[in-house]
Order: sequence, then C-alpha cells, then structure tokens
Amino acid sequence: MAKVDLNCDLGESFGAWKMGMDDKIIPLVSSANIACGFHAGDPLVMEKTVALAKQHGVAVGAHPGFPDLSGFGRRNLAMSAAEARACVQYQIGALEAFCKAAGVPLIHVKAHGALYNMAAKDISLARAIAEGIKAVNPGLIFLALAGSCMVAAAKEIGLPVAEEVFADRAYEEDCSLVSRTKPGAMISDEDEAVSRVVGMIKTGTVKAITGKEISVQADSICVHGDGEKALLFVEKLNRAFKAEGIAKASLQEIMACRKAK
Amino acid sequence: MAKVDLNCDLGESFGAWKMGMDDKIIPLVSSANIACGFHAGDPLVMEKTVALAKQHGVAVGAHPGFPDLSGFGRRNLAMSAAEARACVQYQIGALEAFCKAAGVPLIHVKAHGALYNMAAKDISLARAIAEGIKAVNPGLIFLALAGSCMVAAAKEIGLPVAEEVFADRAYEEDCSLVSRTKPGAMISDEDEAVSRVVGMIKTGTVKAITGKEISVQADSICVHGDGEKALLFVEKLNRAFKAEGIAKASLQEIMACRKAK
Amino acid sequence: MAKVDLNCDLGESFGAWKMGMDDKIIPLVSSANIACGFHAGDPLVMEKTVALAKQHGVAVGAHPGFPDLSGFGRRNLAMSAAEARACVQYQIGALEAFCKAAGVPLIHVKAHGALYNMAAKDISLARAIAEGIKAVNPGLIFLALAGSCMVAAAKEIGLPVAEEVFADRAYEEDCSLVSRTKPGAMISDEDEAVSRVVGMIKTGTVKAITGKEISVQADSICVHGDGEKALLFVEKLNRAFKAEGIAKASLQEIMACRKAK
Amino acid sequence: MAKVDLNCDLGESFGAWKMGMDDKIIPLVSSANIACGFHAGDPLVMEKTVALAKQHGVAVGAHPGFPDLSGFGRRNLAMSAAEARACVQYQIGALEAFCKAAGVPLIHVKAHGALYNMAAKDISLARAIAEGIKAVNPGLIFLALAGSCMVAAAKEIGLPVAEEVFADRAYEEDCSLVSRTKPGAMISDEDEAVSRVVGMIKTGTVKAITGKEISVQADSICVHGDGEKALLFVEKLNRAFKAEGIAKASLQEIMACRKAK
Repeated sequence: MAKVDLNCDLGESFGAWKMGMDDKIIPLVSSANIACGFHAGDPLVMEKTVALAKQHGVAVGAHPGFPDLSGFGRRNLAMSAAEARACVQYQIGALEAFCKAAGVPLIHVKAHGALYNMAAKDISLARAIAEGIKAVNPGLIFLALAGSCMVAAAKEIGLPVAEEVFADRAYEEDCSLVSRTKPGAMISDEDEAVSRVVGMIKTGTVKAITGKEISVQADSICVHGDGEKALLFVEKLNRAFKAEGIAKASLQEIMACRKAK
Repeated sequence: MAKVDLNCDLGESFGAWKMGMDDKIIPLVSSANIACGFHAGDPLVMEKTVALAKQHGVAVGAHPGFPDLSGFGRRNLAMSAAEARACVQYQIGALEAFCKAAGVPLIHVKAHGALYNMAAKDISLARAIAEGIKAVNPGLIFLALAGSCMVAAAKEIGLPVAEEVFADRAYEEDCSLVSRTKPGAMISDEDEAVSRVVGMIKTGTVKAITGKEISVQADSICVHGDGEKALLFVEKLNRAFKAEGIAKASLQEIMACRKAK
Repeated sequence: MAKVDLNCDLGESFGAWKMGMDDKIIPLVSSANIACGFHAGDPLVMEKTVALAKQHGVAVGAHPGFPDLSGFGRRNLAMSAAEARACVQYQIGALEAFCKAAGVPLIHVKAHGALYNMAAKDISLARAIAEGIKAVNPGLIFLALAGSCMVAAAKEIGLPVAEEVFADRAYEEDCSLVSRTKPGAMISDEDEAVSRVVGMIKTGTVKAITGKEISVQADSICVHGDGEKALLFVEKLNRAFKAEGIAKASLQEIMACRKAK
Repeated sequence: MAKVDLNCDLGESFGAWKMGMDDKIIPLVSSANIACGFHAGDPLVMEKTVALAKQHGVAVGAHPGFPDLSGFGRRNLAMSAAEARACVQYQIGALEAFCKAAGVPLIHVKAHGALYNMAAKDISLARAIAEGIKAVNPGLIFLALAGSCMVAAAKEIGLPVAEEVFADRAYEEDCSLVSRTKPGAMISDEDEAVSRVVGMIKTGTVKAITGKEISVQADSICVHGDGEKALLFVEKLNRAFKAEGIAKASLQEIMACRKAK
C-alpha cells in the first residue's frame, strides 16, 4: 500500500499575536513543523504546540528559520555556513527541551522560509543545515524539498532525509519549483493539484512545466492550515488518499518502509 | 578533604561585541555557566564556549536569563511563572544542543541576573525555574544562592540542588545577601574575603553583618572573570584552597560526596 | 458645549502578524495612539497607521512602550529613569519621522501597558516619561491617567497634559483604578459605563468604588477596537455623546478650551 | 583651499557591550555617523554619542542599518524597497529625537554595512534609502559611496548628496570598490593610502586597480576608530592634510562650496 506523510507548519503565533488555525489543521496531518522562536513561535507557544501534536498523535519536527522575526524568516539573509549551522542546532535544541518535557520524540527537522528556499539551491548552506541537525542527533530526519541540494547534502553526510513535494506548485525539469514570477507556477485547479499529488505518490513521477515526465520522491506533502480554503483542500486531499488506497503515515514509517525495500 | 566548586559566568559575548576574558578565567574554575542567547550569548558564542569548557575539563552549565538583551538580563521583569518556566526550558535545550554536538554532558543550571535575584526571594518564580529544569532533565543540578527560595523550590520537587556563596558579599542573618545599597554590603578586603570563603567551606558557617554566626552551605563559590583584578582574586582563592587543603571539585563530585555522607 | 476626546491604541500589528480592527475603530475616535516598534508595530505598520489616521482626520499620538515585544509591553520592567526617558524619546522620534513624511503633526504621547501602569504610581518613572516627551518637543501633549503621577510629573515641568478616564473601570477614592483582582473593578454593564462617562465629562466627578463622589478630569476617554463588542460599545458611546450634547474634539481643541477658561 | 570632511561610525556600543574608541576618534573627525539601534546602538548610547559630538563640534549624522543586531548589520538581507525605506525613516527619526533634545541639527545620513554595500550596486534599494531620507527632511545630506547607485538615486530625486572615498581600498574602473576577495583590494601601505587620498581631494582622480586614471568625487573620507592603529592612521591623515593645505570641513560647508562654484 502506498504511504505518504502530510506535513504542516504550526506554532507560528508569537506573544500576543495569533497566527494559523493549528487546532483545525492538526487532525488532518501526520507531521508538525514547529517554529522555534527565531522567525515565529516563542517558548510558551512551542510548549503548547508540542502538547497539541502529542494529543493528536502527530509527529513533532523542528522548523528552524532565520533570526528575522520582523520578516517572518522570509527574507534572504546572507549568514555564513557556521552561523547557519549553529542557528539550526540552537533551535532544534530549544524545541527538543519541550519534547522531552512532554515525553514525545523529536522526529524531523524542516528549514523555514528563506532558509529553506536558499538551501534548496545552495549546497554549502544545505550542508550547514544538515550538519547542524546531525550534530544534535544523527537519527533526526531532514525533511527537504524533493531533489534539492538539501537532499544531496543529507546523503553526503549520511543523515536520514525525507523528500517533500508541493500540491500547488509546478516543477521545472530539474525538480526545482517553478518561480512564482513565471506563468503557470501555481496549480490553482484543486482537482488537478490532487491528481498530481496522487500521481507523484503512486508513480514517483510528475509532469514538469515543459511537459516532460520527471522523477520525484514524494515522501511527504507540504500542506497549509492558514485559512478555510487551505483546510478544505487538505480535507479533499485526505479523501482522495482514502479513495486511492494511500495511507497517511509518519516519516518514521516511511523511512522504515524505504529501508525494508 | 574539603571540596568546593568554583563557578563563573562565561560566553557573554554577543555577535560583534566581546565581553569577558573567558580564555583566562576558565583554567581557574571548575564550572562554567554559559549564557543561552536571551540576555547574552548567541549560537556561535555558545558553541565556542562549550568547546572551551571541554578543552579545559570544566563542567558545562546553562545560564538562562530574562529575554532582555538590551538590559543584559539585569532588570527585573514581571514574567508569569509559566513564561519563566518555558523560557528556562527553551534556553537549557538550546545549550544542550551544543553539548550533544561536542559530546559533553550538561551538568547544571544557574539563573542569571535579575532572574536569579528575583527567584532568590520569590518562591513561585523559584519553583518555575526548578520545574523548567526538571522538565528537561531531572538529573540536572540547580545551582542556587545558598539558603534562598531557589534551594527550597528544588528540594520541594526533588531536583538536585547545589548552593553557592559569594566571596565579596556580606550576609544577613537569614542568609540573604546584604543589599548593595547598605554600608558593609561588599567585602572589599581581599584577604578577608578569602578567609570568609575558607571558613564557609570548612565550617559551614559565616558571620552575618549583624555579627551573628549563621549556617551556610558552600558547595560552590561564584567568581568573576571580567577584569584583571577579578582574575587575580580567583588565583589568590585557588592558592588559598591549596594551602588549606581544599580540593576544587565539580558539582557532580560534590553532590556525590554529599549523598555518600 | 461639553467636549471630549476619544483615544484608541492603533498600529499594533507586527510583521506578518495582524492585530486589531484599525480600519473599523478609527472613524469612531478622535485620537490614535500609534505603537512605535518596541512592544508592537514596525516601520511599515507605523507608516500605514499614520496614513490611516490622516485619511480619517484623526490626531496622531505616539504610544511608546517597554522594549518587550514577546510580552507586548505588558510586563513590568525595572528600567532606570534614564533608560525610560531615552526609550520614550527614541520611540517618539521614530513615529515623528512618519508624521513628517505624511505631513501630519504629532500631537500627543501616551505610554503603553506596563510603562503606563507603573508610571501612574511611580513619580520618578512618570518624570522620566514627561522629560523624554518635553526633550523632543515641549508642545506635545502628555495623555495620562487622570489624577495619576503622570499628570503631576507633567505639571511639575510645564508639559501640556490631558487626562484620560476609563469607561469600564471602577475608581478608588484617590482616582486610581481599582485593581482588576478586586471585585467590582470592571464596569460590565454597558449602560452604566456610558452614563458614568457622560457624568465624568459633564460634572467632572464620578462615584468611587467606596461610594464617595470624587473629582476627575475627563479630557479623553480610552476606548478599544480589538473586537466586535468593543466596536459596538464605542458606537454606543458616540450615540450617547450626540444625545447628551457632548462634542467629540481633538486634544488640541480641548487644551485650547481649557486655556481659554 | 581644498576642503574635505572626515567621517567615522560612532555609537556602536549596545547595552552592556562596549565597542570602539569614540572618545579618542571624535576629536579627529568632522562628521559622526551614529548607529540608530537596529544593527548597533541603543537609546542611551545614541543620547551619549550625540552629546559627545556636540561637545567636539562634530556634525551629527544618522547611520541606519538592517534590523540585524546579531549580525551587526553586515549580512545581506533581502528587504523590499518599502521595508528599507520605512526602516531608514524610522532610524533617522529616532536619532533626530536626541538631536532635538541636545539642540544640535541632524546633518547627514549614511547607510551602514550590508545596507550600504547592497545599495551601492542596487539602484532600487538606493532609491528606497534616498526616498526615506527625503521623506523625513529633504535638507539632509545623503553621504554615499562616490560614484555609486546611491549617488545616482539622490540626484534623481533632488536630495543633496556627498560622496565619500576610502583611503585603504583599491577602485575598479567604474569607481566601485575592488572586492576584498581579490588581490590588491586593500591598500596596506599607509603612506600610499595617504597620498592616494590627498590626490583624490586635490585632483578629483585616482588610479584604478587596472592602472587607468578615473574620476572620483572626494567630499568625505571614511575613517575608523576601532583600534590604536586606526587612530594613528587618522592622525597621520590629519597631519598630511595640514601639510598639503587641505582644510577639514563639515559636509554642510563642502556642499555650500560646491554650490558656490
């Protein structure tokens, strides 16, 4: 039976400011990427979000970002590799403290925003993240953009890596995401988005924007919980998985299956 | 043979700003309280300071403070108990990530600045810190002002606690530090300071500012490394310990000895 | 004809986080207290909020707070008087830059949250704020809790001061607000709240929680725009003012009227 | 008589952390670029630095940087033009508050670190800074890298602009600084550095790294006060100016002379 993980960014409130609909999206996913206080989140929010994930049996991952609260970690920042590695370690450790207190394991790490986007194309930044993760715990799973430099960096150093795909984005032939500035970058038709995801999971391929069939490793689907429309789409995705015989599974199960093959 | 730990705050540089003489003080102490990024320190500084402690065989402790970088954590801040507990957990976890990467154990936690001073007298804040420590790791040693609310809070919840004394401060009869605003609060004569410390270690007592002999548990001495004068005093203290047959020991040894008794 | 100002905190969004219903409350008030980036707000939010105030003909004031973004400036912070004064100056200057760019005058300054509450009872902190305001521009109006230390501090140094009252709070005999922890602190009945406000404006008196009639200077009413209920109350207040022949006026008009008397 | 301004970054301490030798460098320069709290500086440091400049009759300028305290504003940050413009306005306003309080005029604005370096080559970022300056006060002088996009942007919108040169850096033929990664980028011979500066001031030309003579507008020389060696160099520069009949002058004088021509 085909298996896939659904991951979502959570715990993005900060102090007096609320963000997202964590309570509503969490029952629909299998992995939570929890903000660690640099681009979003704060100690109390992290604690609450870990508790929420535990309650719903959803796997906890760290979601480290750039130290750029006012930019929500979405602005490219030219950190050195050493700075990036240390920032990632710091944030993972901070989240792990709440995992230990709650008695839940920390399973994966996914970079946020500009850190993610830059590392997808910059192998030295990707290595810095991978090394930061491995330094804290070599058993952590690096959740990375399918086919990106992050996947390559993890493989180089022997860090477990899971690859994620996007339902609503078109792909270039090299498996990178089509830039949002190009026409056709977004898959706005929901049914098309769902059928592309199902195809990626079942066949390991997807049609690039050029029309060429490309290989893609769809261990996890990145979904959003920041609005009613996003929630409805995730529900639709869940229904499609049921109908297509695709089981929602944690990254740990997926990695275990892969090893078994 | 009498034993005592010498602890010092380290890793208080931040970004482009340097602070302290970490390289010079670290060979003279047995425990390092490392800033965790809230009042001082940053991920790279934390990483370097853990490496420095490892190199000198000095025990690593977390030194969490208030989230008040511009005030260096020295200004009282009215956090709720839940906020304080979560902030302490977060900072311990962040430091522990660098300990894991360096392969050194995290041994103790000492609160910094205003968080320390407030918790010395406020049992609910002291409990919040103790609970934050225990939540991350119940084996961590809470390094606290001798005879303070922090000691009481640790004992309440069964968290290991080591008590520290100050060489350069006078004590009230209730073991609290004489306020700096009062005459006689500071012991400025270095020889007197040394002999008071030796007395506290050997006899478990010290003369309060009122003249009354009071009990005090001197597991550790808090020293400073922020200037030539401070360094010379710590060297003098080390020589006095040698002459008096007092062994410098880690908090772990001291706790083990205490249990053995 | 009786006159009163209605003031509201605005511009409390930060980066990716939205807060408040600024668009809906601004047509209902005469003065906007705009957050200055320390407890809330950021440069772009400040610019937009000044533009919004300009568009609605609402007077612009600075709303400086403690440098405590994660606590929204609501936690007591033990700043020195020099620090508080400089922080207030800094924030006023920052907002004034956007006022100049928009071609609107900066009219008043109201302290936020814990800075406001502490200064209401602490004359030296109140003086620090008043001096900070005067240093930037001695024509700025200090908008302060009626009868508080802030009013006294402003009068001491000859800074214009306007006094504000709360519709939903009970008063002690000394004109201070009844602590929220005491029963009866909040006026939950909206009609009673409206009639108390109308009384304060028309008679300059209000019944304290003890039942005694006390004097109160009601230059301005502090209202909130953070929810549907709050908006409805401000609309009710506006209708009551119309019915009672009370004109909504800017602080400048109110100060001018007072001088004329 | 030839005239030139000497400008130096000042007020880069932050909270408990000291940086620079402000007291020693300030008597040697004519313009102070004062950090505004985003990459360095804080309200109290800004107040003290304005007072120091006033005492020495040195012109005060704002030195806005990226909101990146942990990176000292030296890391490229991909702000939008609107964000950059608003951040510049905010910081200028904040510093101007201390100028008003001290009764000294704010004369110029120079971008810091990565903001400066990026804007030197990015006309839209340069425009954002120029617009931010003009919005606060169209009489402020934009102090910019000679021949850079910042100069072009200022001229486009009619903002006064002064051009600065570096004593210790080699130039490309297009007047940009030779990248530090290239051999020959730094002029390490002090006598050569001095004679290049004197040449730039007197002839308006300098030899590029290719050997070609290029035009350069040397209104101001950027000097450093962060160490004994830097101070000695500035003293040497001052002596050379005296010997060569070059008068140290404020940017205002230099702009006035230029207009007079």
